[in-house]
Amino acid sequence: MLNSYILIIGDEILSGRTYDSNSCYIARRINELGIPPKSIITIGDDKLLIEQTISALLELADIIFICGGLGPTPDDKTVISVANVLKRRLVLDETTLSRVENYFAKQNQKVPELATKQALVLQGAIILNNPVGQAPGMILKHGKKSIVLLPGVPIEMEKIFETGVFPYLNDNYSLKPDFILNIRTTNISEMVIVEKISDVIKRYKGISTAYLPSVLGVDIKISSIQDKKTFSQLDKEITARLKSYIYGRGQETIEDIIGNLLRKRQLTLSIAESCTGGLISDKITNTPGSSEYFIGSIIVYNNKIKKLLAGVKDETLKKNGAVSKETVIEMALGIRERFNTDIGIGVSGIAGPTGATKDKPIGLVYIGIASKKASNYEEHIFNGNRRMIKEKATMVALDFLRRTLELL
Amino acid sequence: MLNSYILIIGDEILSGRTYDSNSCYIARRINELGIPPKSIITIGDDKLLIEQTISALLELADIIFICGGLGPTPDDKTVISVANVLKRRLVLDETTLSRVENYFAKQNQKVPELATKQALVLQGAIILNNPVGQAPGMILKHGKKSIVLLPGVPIEMEKIFETGVFPYLNDNYSLKPDFILNIRTTNISEMVIVEKISDVIKRYKGISTAYLPSVLGVDIKISSIQDKKTFSQLDKEITARLKSYIYGRGQETIEDIIGNLLRKRQLTLSIAESCTGGLISDKITNTPGSSEYFIGSIIVYNNKIKKLLAGVKDETLKKNGAVSKETVIEMALGIRERFNTDIGIGVSGIAGPTGATKDKPIGLVYIGIASKKASNYEEHIFNGNRRMIKEKATMVALDFLRRTLELL
Repeated sequence: MLNSYILIIGDEILSGRTYDSNSCYIARRINELGIPPKSIITIGDDKLLIEQTISALLELADIIFICGGLGPTPDDKTVISVANVLKRRLVLDETTLSRVENYFAKQNQKVPELATKQALVLQGAIILNNPVGQAPGMILKHGKKSIVLLPGVPIEMEKIFETGVFPYLNDNYSLKPDFILNIRTTNISEMVIVEKISDVIKRYKGISTAYLPSVLGVDIKISSIQDKKTFSQLDKEITARLKSYIYGRGQETIEDIIGNLLRKRQLTLSIAESCTGGLISDKITNTPGSSEYFIGSIIVYNNKIKKLLAGVKDETLKKNGAVSKETVIEMALGIRERFNTDIGIGVSGIAGPTGATKDKPIGLVYIGIASKKASNYEEHIFNGNRRMIKEKATMVALDFLRRTLELL
Repeated sequence: MLNSYILIIGDEILSGRTYDSNSCYIARRINELGIPPKSIITIGDDKLLIEQTISALLELADIIFICGGLGPTPDDKTVISVANVLKRRLVLDETTLSRVENYFAKQNQKVPELATKQALVLQGAIILNNPVGQAPGMILKHGKKSIVLLPGVPIEMEKIFETGVFPYLNDNYSLKPDFILNIRTTNISEMVIVEKISDVIKRYKGISTAYLPSVLGVDIKISSIQDKKTFSQLDKEITARLKSYIYGRGQETIEDIIGNLLRKRQLTLSIAESCTGGLISDKITNTPGSSEYFIGSIIVYNNKIKKLLAGVKDETLKKNGAVSKETVIEMALGIRERFNTDIGIGVSGIAGPTGATKDKPIGLVYIGIASKKASNYEEHIFNGNRRMIKEKATMVALDFLRRTLELL
């Protein structure tokens, strides 16, 4: 087993001002290659500490991924620190220099003086092209070890990783990963899952199981050195226990699953969103090609608009309120008719922190779905703050749509 | 200066399947208390490694924040590991037990057997109530050191942190932080900022400056032990150089700034979104009370809907295409009229990965804004993948709205 470590460098991470999404990305991709990281370590832009940490990791690691601090501004100290530890000189890379010059030319901007500093690279390094930014990536061979340097801006890191680092790792460290089964569930708690499947899990030897809860649901991750046949038997048994709580496998997202279902059935979709404020539509349009089946939405943050554009009757609002099963069904029917789609969804709820009434608590959400055949609704009560309630309502609405589509 | 460390525990983080947002949250909050973390370390659910890491950190740290692995399932090993290192027994906490029982009762669910395991806590610990989940937080005093245990589910961690941990830290480790100035810019590159302000920065002694780029823009973070007066002079000088590239200060978000501007001017807003797919509306509705000024949106993912509901003329689409300045201005005017709002926004662009034409590359985005006074547009070309283009277009649209509102 190879030992890999991820070292994230940046005061902005330790200050809590910036999310570190890079370590997650790198971890996911190297896991796919069978090189899971032993640890992810984050430290600040402190030259001495960077040098000490790299020296220590060189004792433990076969591969070190270092991310951040490659920029040309004075607070970027990664390149000089690596140069000191590995005793390498900095040299000017002409390709990087002209790429940086072109980058600014394309946007009709003058090349800033600092840009030339960006072209200083570690002697002997493999230079990795950065197609979307300035700082190039680098790979250094140090005896049998590899040190990979990546910029901290996520889009740049990802592009360089995919075009330069992943192919390098694949060529030099090809490792066959264990079988991994990831079963994605939603709308069911971690503990209830354990109750339902723990006797199944116990019957299989040599597997390890993890339950990974997130706001979207619980992923059940099972890894094993078993043969594939045993593994698919286990999958079948778990599926029989959890049934429609399972929405997907592997890393499929709910929006991709829905996209495939709509495409396969040649159906179109429109949505009337209230408390989710556009998040359902945002998710759906993250899938490339979603314009094939997603026609559009109305976000009705106002009762007048609910009546005018989503076809909700005045008396329905008066009698049942905006947050009610009657309203979301009329929203679903109304949007389906107005946008002339096969499926219509209506969502209304109380995202908080204000807006609760005696009968209707914060977190109460109704979802209605209308198709040619029928209209239906679900009622949910979610815990959490405003953003969490929006995210949970979005996930449940998408999952309700999935279950509806599977029956069509 | 106190030494604090954040230890994140969870195979799901190292597998790259789950983002670790907890370390960012904890880091931000303890920075506000003047206890910045020296390092953030992530390791897996491995009992031996957890014990070794905690033992090592006890040598270095005054405060250790341990997050994750507090659940009752067999893969959760944090509590038992801490018990072993600190030689504490596990005892049953009656309050936690009855809270867990109530939690399931409220949702009309049977209490799972595992739930009782959740009430096992470390002897002598301060038990912190978890109002939104099962696992309680804990604080252990170990000599002069404090060890804080928090669950890994972000909403639970945050609730416990705010109600239990923050007050504890504030009472026991009150430290006055340095002055920190955070200037938020957008639509200008890090290097151009450095060119514009580096001579100003040089004139001030004893300050440290960091440039923090993200998809939304660049934050300029300046910390110093200077007096407040010198600091506000520096702020003035930077503002004079960067002018309207600055959209906010501190941790203000663009959506909160817009919300305040709309409220102050008593204006209402509606949006016609195409390539952003609902993300602009989603952002705006993250602000509590946004229903006061945000009336609603139409997401027009289809040209028919653009004509029918956003008031775009057939000949405009035929002559200029859906991605054009003419179309977004008609969208802005159309949505403003239909939703009867003071301001209307129209956005159209090519998010990719397909859809580019000879004249119109992926990343091309037009934004139109219509008010009572006038209508105006901006043209942008963004780098990045589909999601990045959606996010950058959203940020620029919100910033264009900010600049427009400031002149009204």
